[in-house]
Amino acid sequence: MNRQQLTEQINRKKSFLCIGLDTDITLIPKFLLDHEDPVLEFNKRIIGATHDLCVAYKPNSAFYESRGLAGWQSLINTWKHIPKDCLSIIDAKRGDIGNTSTMYAKAFFDKTASGMSFDAITVAPYMGIDSIQPFLDFENKWVILLVLTSNNSSKDFQLTENTDGHLFETVIKKANTWADDDKLMYVVGATRTEEFKIIRKHAPNHFLLVPGLGAQGGSLREVCKYGLTKDCGLLVNASRSIIYASNGENFAQEARKEVLKIQKEMAIELNRIFS
Amino acid sequence: MNRQQLTEQINRKKSFLCIGLDTDITLIPKFLLDHEDPVLEFNKRIIGATHDLCVAYKPNSAFYESRGLAGWQSLINTWKHIPKDCLSIIDAKRGDIGNTSTMYAKAFFDKTASGMSFDAITVAPYMGIDSIQPFLDFENKWVILLVLTSNNSSKDFQLTENTDGHLFETVIKKANTWADDDKLMYVVGATRTEEFKIIRKHAPNHFLLVPGLGAQGGSLREVCKYGLTKDCGLLVNASRSIIYASNGENFAQEARKEVLKIQKEMAIELNRIFS
Repeated sequence: MNRQQLTEQINRKKSFLCIGLDTDITLIPKFLLDHEDPVLEFNKRIIGATHDLCVAYKPNSAFYESRGLAGWQSLINTWKHIPKDCLSIIDAKRGDIGNTSTMYAKAFFDKTASGMSFDAITVAPYMGIDSIQPFLDFENKWVILLVLTSNNSSKDFQLTENTDGHLFETVIKKANTWADDDKLMYVVGATRTEEFKIIRKHAPNHFLLVPGLGAQGGSLREVCKYGLTKDCGLLVNASRSIIYASNGENFAQEARKEVLKIQKEMAIELNRIFS
Repeated sequence: MNRQQLTEQINRKKSFLCIGLDTDITLIPKFLLDHEDPVLEFNKRIIGATHDLCVAYKPNSAFYESRGLAGWQSLINTWKHIPKDCLSIIDAKRGDIGNTSTMYAKAFFDKTASGMSFDAITVAPYMGIDSIQPFLDFENKWVILLVLTSNNSSKDFQLTENTDGHLFETVIKKANTWADDDKLMYVVGATRTEEFKIIRKHAPNHFLLVPGLGAQGGSLREVCKYGLTKDCGLLVNASRSIIYASNGENFAQEARKEVLKIQKEMAIELNRIFS
């Protein structure tokens, strides 16, 4: 899904919501445990109840890996069920020397090799361009680079200052030279609204993937105030607040209600730029 | 395996070699492809031919993930075959917000959850202590933090300068406050011998995991000159130069010959400190 297609979906659905499939088998409704692949069943029902109101799904690789072989199978199965009108993002935060990153890219982008071909992957910047290039080399795929994360200890290193500004600014400025904004997105936490202005100074047009809404405390209004661009430029992610809205039989309907609340707010924000 | 046990193995085997199992199914001898799990068969034979001469094995997660479900099965099978007198390191370079890193830790440390329980994992520092703590919380496990990597573009960010020195120095100084040297190791590339003196200034006693020997061009002599401590303090990794020494029937024996060359050099270095 290229940038124009993504923007079309955002405009059509009046939503720039990404739903994080951080599916923990110990937190899903108990009645699903009778299914052959309970995590897949959960994800299918969440997707079924929400796909008209969001533009992206983001399975979090860790939650699948934690269950070993069964979890990896759930991840492959889940990838197959993400609708084509939604961007499929694997949240993997990978990054290693070139020949190793090539293997990670195959793992998530090359269906023939691994059984999965996500539209986008999150990657970590610490090892520099060598570690990112193999992902960029795949055509028609997005690379989403960690810039400023939503967790408290993002300050440990991301907010350290060098002659060039904060480390996260160095990352964004350097990454701007690696690929264009039709190929590269940046992760900026919803809890970092103070820094959104700085981010938008360096990356006025890039799509930002913004986690940290809901359970982590970020505010959609604040994110939009500083983050929205003329074609939206935001994918705002929520995970736990949606997928665990209820753990009863009606969990998918309750998830939809949460999504509707967010989507309505998003429609208002989008009206400001698209009208 | 705790620090004392690791040092005992080093002293007993006169080796501080870690063998990287970056096993690429397209590069292994063709006759192995008839086996049910060719990558496992390859790794078993490499391990069988070398385990008396090295103290650690380090499967590189990317090479297994790239093959999807079959690859994940090979990784689990390989973990089971790493001998107990060798440190088992999963080279995964993970790191995410706390609840996600907890899942990554389960994936590689919690056998009940995932089928694997490595002794150690490599992790990435960018997201700070929140992203590392869940790994540290596992008892009797090592956490090996990226500090200064062997690839060319490590300079993109790791060598940027802030008021505190280079970023890699900030990482090491901060990480020193997170855990002791009986729990935490640092990754320092063998191609970074100039910076070894700085690293040893900040981390005089930590074990360093040193990749980049062989295919990447690092020198064992140089690494030892600046890196050796009174109980060794080094795990030097080689991967491709050993495991792909030959792709004939005799690949395991040829791998052993390569290992012997390195081990003899290591024995000379160790004699200087242990004698």
